[in-house]
This record gives sequence, C-alpha cells and structure tokens, in this order.
Amino acid sequence: MIAPISLDDDWQAHPAVGDAMYSLVRDLYPICRSITGDGVRETLRLVGRHIPLTIREVATGTKVFDWMVPKEWNIRDAYVKDASGARIVDFNHSNLHVLNYSVPVHQKVSLAELKEHLFTLPDRPDWIPYRTSYYKENWGFCLSHKRYEELKEREYEVCVDSTLEDGHLTFGEFFLDGESPDEILISCHVCHPSLCNDNLSGIALSTMLAQHLSRCRRRYSYRFLFVPGTIGAITWLALNGTNVHRIKHGLVVALVGDTGNLTYKKSRRGSADVDRAVLHVLEHSGDPYNVLEFSPYGYDERQYCSPGFNLAVGSLTRTPYGKYPQYHTSADDLTLVKPGALADSFSKYLEALFVLERNSVYINQNPKCEPQLGRRGLYREMGGVADGREIELAMLWVLNLSDGGYSLLDIAERAGLPFRLVARAADLLTKSDLLKDASSIGKSDTNDVPT
Amino acid sequence: MIAPISLDDDWQAHPAVGDAMYSLVRDLYPICRSITGDGVRETLRLVGRHIPLTIREVATGTKVFDWMVPKEWNIRDAYVKDASGARIVDFNHSNLHVLNYSVPVHQKVSLAELKEHLFTLPDRPDWIPYRTSYYKENWGFCLSHKRYEELKEREYEVCVDSTLEDGHLTFGEFFLDGESPDEILISCHVCHPSLCNDNLSGIALSTMLAQHLSRCRRRYSYRFLFVPGTIGAITWLALNGTNVHRIKHGLVVALVGDTGNLTYKKSRRGSADVDRAVLHVLEHSGDPYNVLEFSPYGYDERQYCSPGFNLAVGSLTRTPYGKYPQYHTSADDLTLVKPGALADSFSKYLEALFVLERNSVYINQNPKCEPQLGRRGLYREMGGVADGREIELAMLWVLNLSDGGYSLLDIAERAGLPFRLVARAADLLTKSDLLKDASSIGKSDTNDVPT
Amino acid sequence: MIAPISLDDDWQAHPAVGDAMYSLVRDLYPICRSITGDGVRETLRLVGRHIPLTIREVATGTKVFDWMVPKEWNIRDAYVKDASGARIVDFNHSNLHVLNYSVPVHQKVSLAELKEHLFTLPDRPDWIPYRTSYYKENWGFCLSHKRYEELKEREYEVCVDSTLEDGHLTFGEFFLDGESPDEILISCHVCHPSLCNDNLSGIALSTMLAQHLSRCRRRYSYRFLFVPGTIGAITWLALNGTNVHRIKHGLVVALVGDTGNLTYKKSRRGSADVDRAVLHVLEHSGDPYNVLEFSPYGYDERQYCSPGFNLAVGSLTRTPYGKYPQYHTSADDLTLVKPGALADSFSKYLEALFVLERNSVYINQNPKCEPQLGRRGLYREMGGVADGREIELAMLWVLNLSDGGYSLLDIAERAGLPFRLVARAADLLTKSDLLKDASSIGKSDTNDVPT
Repeated sequence: MIAPISLDDDWQAHPAVGDAMYSLVRDLYPICRSITGDGVRETLRLVGRHIPLTIREVATGTKVFDWMVPKEWNIRDAYVKDASGARIVDFNHSNLHVLNYSVPVHQKVSLAELKEHLFTLPDRPDWIPYRTSYYKENWGFCLSHKRYEELKEREYEVCVDSTLEDGHLTFGEFFLDGESPDEILISCHVCHPSLCNDNLSGIALSTMLAQHLSRCRRRYSYRFLFVPGTIGAITWLALNGTNVHRIKHGLVVALVGDTGNLTYKKSRRGSADVDRAVLHVLEHSGDPYNVLEFSPYGYDERQYCSPGFNLAVGSLTRTPYGKYPQYHTSADDLTLVKPGALADSFSKYLEALFVLERNSVYINQNPKCEPQLGRRGLYREMGGVADGREIELAMLWVLNLSDGGYSLLDIAERAGLPFRLVARAADLLTKSDLLKDASSIGKSDTNDVPT
Repeated sequence: MIAPISLDDDWQAHPAVGDAMYSLVRDLYPICRSITGDGVRETLRLVGRHIPLTIREVATGTKVFDWMVPKEWNIRDAYVKDASGARIVDFNHSNLHVLNYSVPVHQKVSLAELKEHLFTLPDRPDWIPYRTSYYKENWGFCLSHKRYEELKEREYEVCVDSTLEDGHLTFGEFFLDGESPDEILISCHVCHPSLCNDNLSGIALSTMLAQHLSRCRRRYSYRFLFVPGTIGAITWLALNGTNVHRIKHGLVVALVGDTGNLTYKKSRRGSADVDRAVLHVLEHSGDPYNVLEFSPYGYDERQYCSPGFNLAVGSLTRTPYGKYPQYHTSADDLTLVKPGALADSFSKYLEALFVLERNSVYINQNPKCEPQLGRRGLYREMGGVADGREIELAMLWVLNLSDGGYSLLDIAERAGLPFRLVARAADLLTKSDLLKDASSIGKSDTNDVPT
Repeated sequence: MIAPISLDDDWQAHPAVGDAMYSLVRDLYPICRSITGDGVRETLRLVGRHIPLTIREVATGTKVFDWMVPKEWNIRDAYVKDASGARIVDFNHSNLHVLNYSVPVHQKVSLAELKEHLFTLPDRPDWIPYRTSYYKENWGFCLSHKRYEELKEREYEVCVDSTLEDGHLTFGEFFLDGESPDEILISCHVCHPSLCNDNLSGIALSTMLAQHLSRCRRRYSYRFLFVPGTIGAITWLALNGTNVHRIKHGLVVALVGDTGNLTYKKSRRGSADVDRAVLHVLEHSGDPYNVLEFSPYGYDERQYCSPGFNLAVGSLTRTPYGKYPQYHTSADDLTLVKPGALADSFSKYLEALFVLERNSVYINQNPKCEPQLGRRGLYREMGGVADGREIELAMLWVLNLSDGGYSLLDIAERAGLPFRLVARAADLLTKSDLLKDASSIGKSDTNDVPT
C-alpha cells in the first residue's frame, strides 16, 4: 500500500527547480532545430544529460497513418549578400533568419525575386519572424522589417547551405514505471529553433519533471515524449498504437516560461480526470488563471485527441500560443522566460500529477451514521463551539461520500476543499481502519496494516 | 447524394421576397375570415394563385378528438344604426366591428341592452378590438372607445346578417416531397379577419416559403398547413393520426411582419433539432433576438405539442402575441407590417430549414491523428503563423468530432462556428474522401463519387 | 381517493400557532437538559401534554453502531464559591454555568487551577457560553468574561453536584399513520439546556406540527423524533434499521424562532423531492431566503444522510447555526425567539409538507390535442384577449405535461407556477374526468367518482 504521508513529502517542487530549468533553456537556445535533423539530435543529447532518454530514429518514407516521415533537413549556413559581399541576412546571427526546412539554394537574384522569399513583421519592425515550409519545398529568409526596408534595388546573392535528404525523424522517449502499468503521458515539441518560451520552456519543464518523478514513489507509470510537433506525435502514435490504451491521462507541455497567467486547455473529453485535476489545482492556487475549451487547433493534443484515440490529454501553458506579441518571433528569447515563472509552472504540473496519483475511491467501513471520531483522537473533545477544524470537516466529508461513488477528487470538488487536505483526511481515516481503498478490498489483508 | 455546394446556392432568400409577401398580405387584408366559412375559402383561393394548394373540407359535426367541427359561419352585413338610420357601427368599414362568429340578430335595443354586446379598448380609444365567440352563441360589436362614449341614451337597431349553419370547416394543405418521406411541418392559422401581422404575415411567409422550396433540392418532404387556429390543427391531427410520426420537425408561422426582434418559442421537447437549428441561426445572425421556453399557450404548437403527439414543433415569430399594443386590434393593419421585416423573417426560416436539411452525421475516414490536409490542397503551406483560416479550423473541427456521435449542428455548436461554414468544410472533406455521410455507409459506392 | 379541496383547507396554519409555540418554549426554557438524564425526561413530559408522545429508554452501554449509549447524567447543583462562601458562579442562576455533562467535583482550588476549568467569551463579555464535554470526562464552569476578569488570586471552592452513572438515554417518538405506510420524518434535538432558538424553537415547532397534522387527512405517515443530538439519532437509527426504508422524506427542525431569513440546507441527495418541495415553497413565498448545499456538519441530518442510509432529509432553519452572535450563549434566550418568526417557520413547514402530500403523477386522459375546456365550464368564453386566467394556464400546463413523466411539482417548476395553483388545476381536471391520478389507474373505478 502507498504510504500516503511520505508520498506527500516527495511530491513537492524544489525551490531551485526554476533556475535548473532556465539553465537548460539557455543551453538549448542556440541550436537550430527543425522537425528532423541534427538540431533535434543535439537537443535530445543535452536533455539526456539530465534523464536517461531513449533516442528513436524513424526512416524517411515510413508511412505513419495518413502521413509519411519526411526527408531529413540539415543546415550549415545561410545568408543574403549584397553586391559588396556583406552578409545583410546571416544565419549565424539568428537561425530564425532562414525559412525553416528551406531547400538548398545558391544564386543571384534581383530585389523583386528576393522579396518573394522574404518574410517580415511590419507591425514589429525590429523582430525576425519564425516561418516554416515543411510540406512544400521552398526557400526563404525571415528578417526584421527595418532591415527589409533598407534593401535597395540591386542584385543579391542568396545561399541556403542545407540538405534535404533521406534520413530519419528523431525523437526522445523516457519511460518511468510505476506500481501500475497505467500511464500518464507528458509530451512536448522539440522542433522549434531559437524560441525560448515556445518551446524550450516546455522541454525544460518536461525534463525536470521527469527527473523529479524518478525520485518519487509512483502509482502511475510515466511516459515523456520529446517529439517534433505534429509529425513526431503522429509517428509515435503510429508506432505505439497497441499500447496507447494504457495512457489514462496526459498533458502537452508548452509555453510555460512567460510571466502570464496559467491557461489550461481541456482535453477533447472536457471533464476527464486530468481536466478536473488541473482545474482543481488552479482553482485552489489562489492565482488567476484561464480555461480554454478543447479545440482541434494548437499543439500535439490535436493528434492525441483525434477521434481514433480521444486520449484524455489537455495542455497547461501560461499565455496561450498566438496571444503574446513575441510569439514565433526573435523576441521569444532568453529575456521572455523567467526562472520564477518556470518554477511556478513546474509546481502546478507536479501538484496536478499528485492529484491524479492520489485520486482513488475509498469505502467507508462504518457507513451507518458517523463513526465516533473522538475516541480515536480524531475529533475535538469540547462541544458547543461553532466551527470544526478543517481536517475534521475533511474527514466528515470523506466519510460521508465514500460510498463507492465518489473519488477523493469528487469529494474535494463537492466539499470545496483542497485536494491535499482531503487526501490527508483519507490517510488518517485509513489508519484508523474507518476507510479502505476500494482497489484494495478483496486483496490480501496485509494491505490494510497501517504503516 | 446531395450535391452540397449547389444546394447552398438554392437555399438563399431572393431579395424581392419581402415585396411579394407584402403584396399577398395586401390582397388578403380585406377578407373577413373566421374559423369556418367563405372567408377562409377566399383566402385559400388567393394563396392558391402562388402554390398548388389542396383544399380540404370537413363537415360540421365531425368528431375530432374531444371536439366537434362547428357550424359554418358566413356573414354578409352587420351594423348598429341610430334613430336616424345612420350606421354608427358598420361592418363594411371594418370586419373587426362584428364579434367574430356572431349569431344573426336584427332587433331594436336600448342603450343598456346594446352595451352588454359592445367591446372596446378604453386604453386605446381610437382602436377597434378583435373579439370572438366561437364556442358560445352570442352576438356583439367591437368599436372604438371614442365612438362608444358618444353613444346616447336612445334606441338602436342592431343587425348581424350572418348564418351559422351546418356546412364545413375548410383548410389548405400543400405537400412537397423530398428525398426522404420524413417531413417538416410548416403551419399557419388562417382564421383571423383583417389583422395583418396576426396572421396574414404568417400566411404570406408560408406561401412564399412553399413556393421557394418547391424549386430547391430537398432531403426532407415538406407539409404546409393553412388551418383555422385550434380547431383546424385539431381537425388535421385527427384526420392524419397515422402519418403524424413522419413529422420530424415543425414550425408554427405567425407574427412575422412587424419590426420587432425575432422571438423563438421552443418546442415542448426544448432541445429538439428544430429548436437548436433556429437558435443557431438566430445566434449567428448578429441580430438581437428573444427565446421563450415552451408553454402550452399560444398558437397551434399547443396542439402539435400536446402530450399524445409531442411533435418537435416550435414557433418563430417577431414580437410575440399580446406583447405589442396593436395586437388583436384594428391597428394591426397594413402599416404595422413591413416588407423588410417579412423578408428578414423569411430568410431566417429558410436558413433554419437549411440547417435541418444539411444536418447529418459524418464519419471521419482517417480518425487516427489528423489527415495531411496540405497535400490535398486543403491547408496553408506556410507554417508558424498564429491563426488558421476559418475554413481550415472548420475542417479540423469536423474531422475531430466526426466519430459518429456528432452531427454537423453538434459540431457547429461545440466549435462556435456558423453552420454553413461547417457544412462547407464537410463538403470539402467529403470530396477528398476524408469524410463520409454516415447514412451512406454500407450503401452502394456510387453514392460516394463526388459530383 | 383524497378529496383535494378539503385537504387544502386543513393544510393551513392557524394564526395562533406562533403564540402556542412561544408558550411551549417558555415552559421548556428553565429545564437543564443534556444528552441523557432527567432534563430530557421532563422536557418530553411537557411535550407530552400536547401530543401523545411515546417515551423510549435505552440502557447505558447499549452498542449503537460505532457508539455506546453513554452514562446518564443528572445534576442537582453546581457553584464556585469564594473565600467568603458567596456563590460567584451559580447553577441556579443559569444552567449554562456548568460545563454540560460535567463529572462531580467538590474541592478547593487555586485561581490558576480554577482557570483551567473556566470557559468564557472574551468578545462578548456579558454572555455565558454553552460548552459540553460528553465524550471526555471533565468538569468545568462557563461564565461571563466580565465575571471572569473580576476573579482574584485566592482559593475557591468548586462543586458540581452531579451524577454520571449507568442509566438510560431517553427520547420521544410520535407516529401518525397515513393512508400509506411511507413515512415523513420530522426530527429535532432535545439535548440543549436553556437555549431558546437552539433548540426549544425546534421542539415547539415539531410539537405543534404533530398536533396540527393529527387533525389533517394524510397520505403519508409521519414520524416525529425528539432525540438528543447525534447519539439520539444514532440510537434511533440503530434500533430501527429495518424500518428506515419507509422514510421517503424528512426534515431536521432547529433554529426556527429567530427573525433571520429562512435557510434551507439540502439533503445529501441534493434534489430529492423534499429539497424541491421546500425550495418551491420558499421561492414562491416572496420572502428572502438562503439555500445551503448539504455538508456533513450540522444537526442530525449528519446521521440520516450518512452513506449507509442516505435518507432524503434536509433541514429548514432560520439563521443557520454559528451564524448569529447569540448562538450557544446565554443570549439565546426568550428575547431572541419571536412568536411571529415561529409562526412563519411553521407555515413554511406545513406548506412544504402539503407539496409532498399532494405531489402525484397524473395522466391526461385526452392526450391528443387539448380537450375542449370551454364546454366543461373550465375556460373563458370570449376569444381574442391576450392573457389567460391563471387557473386556465395551470390547467393547460397540467394537461400538457401529464404524460406520466411529470409530477405536479415537476409541472409547477417547469411552469413557474405556485404548487397550490397547479394542484387546484389538477383537482378541477380530475373532477371533469380529464385527468386521473396515475396511482389510481387499474384500481377499482369507485376511486374515480368525483367527490
């Protein structure tokens, strides 16, 4: 049997976790990632310093449901030179300058031709946009609108020294086994280049969460995926179709480093346990937060929640994608994410997972009338005072609702009490033999010895 | 298979429809209608100029459920004359002057006797009220309160030159067959005399809707009823009991010509498809509107929604009965109804019927993960931008929810998107073989060839 | 068959009931009650002057579920004397002065020792608190904080001349049989000493309600319990386990004499008929009121709603426990409760019971279309006016919804009409053979003769 009190102690975020996450973001920042290629490999190698990640490679051309694993993209250099040979757009300064997944090109072009391959943000003239062209072969450059407006009518030399060839799609996977084969999925996308909040923050949170959980006693098994967006999730699902049913709950981790409010986007199911657990934690946190209904647009919850899977996977971010000005621009840099915000996100993830871990159905062993808590030392001795202690109230709620039809989360919700208090009440009652975990009933009695 | 795109085009209101409706209202205005008699016959004859109406006649004394078809009422003249022989109340000036269904009378009466048979509106001294006495034999006159107050203490000659004799109850019916024997019922009452909004507006809308739909490709069959209120609907139901089950949706049409907001009164079921379709259209119209829960008081939805039938019949009006001052008075005249309001009501009816026509369950043929829309030309090529195009979002919603448990209307509601956009998305996906109409699955494959 | 109209007449509160209740409160006020002992016996004896109460005695040591019937407590005197022999705390002045259930003591103590056994209310320096120590043996005194602060450093003589010995737990029970063996439970606690609102008001209301109902025609049987809090309810449930299933509805009566708003605390089920009946009455009363969700804290609903019973028992009070300053203090005296408030509470109880009594399912005998109410004299003769009479509307609602799926309370709620109006409509329709009580269908036809 799980020893609940000590479990509580493990499942607390360490104060230093924000700095550790920020440090990993900083390490990963310079790498030019895409949906395939060495950028992803290097990223996973650095993550692998913290957790024993398994690296998977899937060959170009492999059929994955309606899709095909694409060619592998690698890039060494890219620039636009003016007549003087000066690099006016230079991949070495920012890997956002190249249209991600750009095919190789090396030629002279007129300004008019060049402009057909340039992308800017007129409203944010100092920032470089992030653009991709994964599924249509194209080349291009992204640059600040300020630089764009300085371009003069002349010939330019454009070069993208990339390769787009048969190779592999790479992703990382880390499995932590628990007491049960039932799994909780934690998934983040690793395909974005030098963008900190989207999604180095998610990679860092997943990594540190995996590291932390590996030290906790776990009822659930945990599967951490570090996959390129869309095609990576699709590939993983295509390769793991027979085991997907083990995933009982899941969260897509992204945008967890900015200082905006936390935002929970519900799973397609809408009131799955993971939805209720996260919302319970947010509600009782005292911090402002936002809730979004599921929509089939966003990150890899699109795939996990496709109707053929319909997994209970939500997504907990801070400011949602597209809702902060720096989104998908060069301004999503090391100044946008903050150790404190990362740590706060981390602790909310951990708390939500704690709720899922501890959320069980218990059975009141003395269902007719209240048991006499006082003679077990669980109730105050003095009568007549108006207010019960919080823990007494939690015990009365647990006893009252533990008829087999309510889980601890159901009880916490109906009682309006924080889950941890309800779980502590359940522990006290279990120790007094007034309560029994429904899943232990019928099993060996040794399970019932209080620890 | 329905060719959806061309269907869309048919199902649009013509700009001139408001004028056509108003013109019909004007033609019908002078006729003195009642629940039986030549006024109804003449009304149906004029409607029959626009649509091939079938006229039904049911003999007086026919038992219809708890009721009996009443005697037929006809009237030639009615007046109150003063001593000088001058008509101070004259049926020829307004047929509202006679208590509708008044028994014949011709006698001299004192002012006191007369006053027992006079009806006025003290609060609206210029208007003539509309009153009836169908089920208790009585004679009487309605007049302006102004005129009433001028009456002096003297003898009067009263005359109602009417007949109340065995004859028939008359109603009109128009049936339009569709691909399915399932029916949509459109019912309006034709028993009110010279009152424009109540209910010449409803007669005109039903007529023009019937005319319009006869030119559209239809999945459903349509049944239009032009019946005297209460007794007409009861009679029709009594005569058609075995076929009533074919009516899947229905609307009672009344009060559609004033300039007030549209008001939808739900069916007894409360969330039938017709309720949801109308409310969806109203919600997405951008215009203000009101919603009323069902109540067993109002027009013929009282009968269609009686517990022995419980049909999914709601009522879409503008200002509800009794809620505008001109209601059931001589001020409900040709100035109260407006071509623009009639046209707006018409287009909302048509749009709601379009939703019902196109509301099907589709099955995502590629339910595991999203299909690759890009290679089918259904998705933008450039990645990294924050917002999807509306039609892309609609396609993602249709794919995500088309698991057999959601109709297109369900999807539109959950997605918060207009139904037509969702239907268009379903069409595009169907053409790409990514979606299949659930009702066509298992049928001949020739159904699936895109048109 | 119940004769509904005369039933209506019986089920009205008498104007003098407030004074009768107040008079009983005044008679009961001086008695020192506790969970056992002669105080309870004397209380029940006085109640027995009004209703033929059955007194039950259960021996100390009897096992009742997880509890044991405790020793019997009786007290003759209690005081604290100063050196001069003057009684500075005197049980004869207020029985609240003694810690309720105090063990006997007679000794000299220092001020410091004494203070460990004194209880005061520093925020309310003039009031004596009410404190108990039922389940831990202790002695003590309650006093005003003002008196406490006057205590000087000297020796005191303390005396509690009580006995705590094997004996009995005493409670009162009154059963009124109705047409059905199904029961409605009315329970109040009788263990509090000189506190008027909590709960002499509840005792008085229960007594007068029992007296009133004994004169009414009743469908339900009624069981009135006058029990010490917690242990009394537990004891009754333990002794009556096999009959508990007969209790279909119940109310715990307490705090019904103050002038605060009525407050209804729902049963654990949350939308049981008793919950809906009380809330319907409160909503239609026009008076402000409060609603509390069930919580497993409060009065004996804690036991009745424990998961092994889960009875449909709510609690209708005025200001809830702990929410008025005089709660559990000497200020809960004869000035806090008012005859008018008692009478108002009484009438709300009676009205809620009336709803339960009359709440039946009826079947429309003419379900296809509306029946012709006019020829039965149930409907106005003049047509064209906008508003129906209230009773006509109620009849239409009853006819429309009486398909077997709606009770009269369901109908009243959906129609937004007061229950009595709906019940009267059902009576009129029943007399016209348009409606039949569902429970009478299939029984002898003699049931159907209108009375």
